Amino acid sequence: MLDAAGRLFGAQHFHEVRMEDIAAEADVGKGTLYRYFNDKEDLFLALLERSSRQLVARLEEEKKQGGSPRDRLQAFVKAVIEFFDERPHLFDLIARAEVMRGPNRAFPWQKARDELFQLFLDLFKDGNILGEFRIRDPELAMLMMLGGMRTVIRFGKQPRPRDLAGQIVANFLNGADAGVKTNGIEPKALSRLAITSRR
Amino acid sequence: MLDAAGRLFGAQHFHEVRMEDIAAEADVGKGTLYRYFNDKEDLFLALLERSSRQLVARLEEEKKQGGSPRDRLQAFVKAVIEFFDERPHLFDLIARAEVMRGPNRAFPWQKARDELFQLFLDLFKDGNILGEFRIRDPELAMLMMLGGMRTVIRFGKQPRPRDLAGQIVANFLNGADAGVKTNGIEPKALSRLAITSRR
Repeated sequence: MLDAAGRLFGAQHFHEVRMEDIAAEADVGKGTLYRYFNDKEDLFLALLERSSRQLVARLEEEKKQGGSPRDRLQAFVKAVIEFFDERPHLFDLIARAEVMRGPNRAFPWQKARDELFQLFLDLFKDGNILGEFRIRDPELAMLMMLGGMRTVIRFGKQPRPRDLAGQIVANFLNGADAGVKTNGIEPKALSRLAITSRR
Repeated sequence: MLDAAGRLFGAQHFHEVRMEDIAAEADVGKGTLYRYFNDKEDLFLALLERSSRQLVARLEEEKKQGGSPRDRLQAFVKAVIEFFDERPHLFDLIARAEVMRGPNRAFPWQKARDELFQLFLDLFKDGNILGEFRIRDPELAMLMMLGGMRTVIRFGKQPRPRDLAGQIVANFLNGADAGVKTNGIEPKALSRLAITSRR
């Protein structure tokens, strides 16, 4: 039933989806649907709650894989992009739940968001400790990375370019600017070095 | 009246704000308010439409300032952060309008979003032409930059660190990784060059 609801919420606006359509799509009676969910709002929150748990589980699985911090970062980016691409309705559901949240309304996506934030933060700190990279400000970097991914997933071209995750990680760690850069050593100083060494 | 509405939408949930509260906050009669706006939804869309125009105007102004592409990038980032920080209710309004949008409902933020996307894209292309930087994939970079900014504005610590815009631009162009990097030239090759030149 949740899968059916997900398909319909992905294809239509929330207010256009009717409980009877969901029942039909799930191939169950309307009575059966109402035995599990009080109304469309209830069903929608259950769907989002399940997606939140699924993402957390997906990330936990990925965590067990090991690898260098850079490889792990790339694997996480890839997993998150795939997760959202497999659920084209998910952004709208999250946005809707966030708009509707209130003191008496749950926001079932909170756990997934907290988990994502913590995971990337830990990864940057790990990378720093292991000396694989040296992230100046892990919190700022985490927010930029996750926000950047969000907007790429939402507005980036489809089908996705091959190795999108690799490009995102390269842009992120090494900078979007592919010009010769040496962080601290000026390009001119570098070319002087090169000329000197060629003598 | 729009300023008053903005203050209330920023302080309370949308459904908690009543037209009479807005009238009181604006120091006008309820009748006056209803002469301009049919209902709360109408007022809310007018407010968002004004914010959209204000951001476009703010960016147009910034465009006239000139400077190197990197300086201009930093000025744009600073302007956008300030704009949203001055309007703490704005993210919620945009999210609400997006959730409520439909074939018959306007989404007044679209123009501001299009303008932001185009502005950053043009800037990266300009920087490439002028040789100030060489952005491999301007569209991907633009999406990562704007998405990153969005999440930093939304979830980043307050009060903002000094020179937040500078840090964002440095992270973005040069990479979050502050380790010695040479984009293409291996650190080892670089140190060989340095050793050679010292002979």
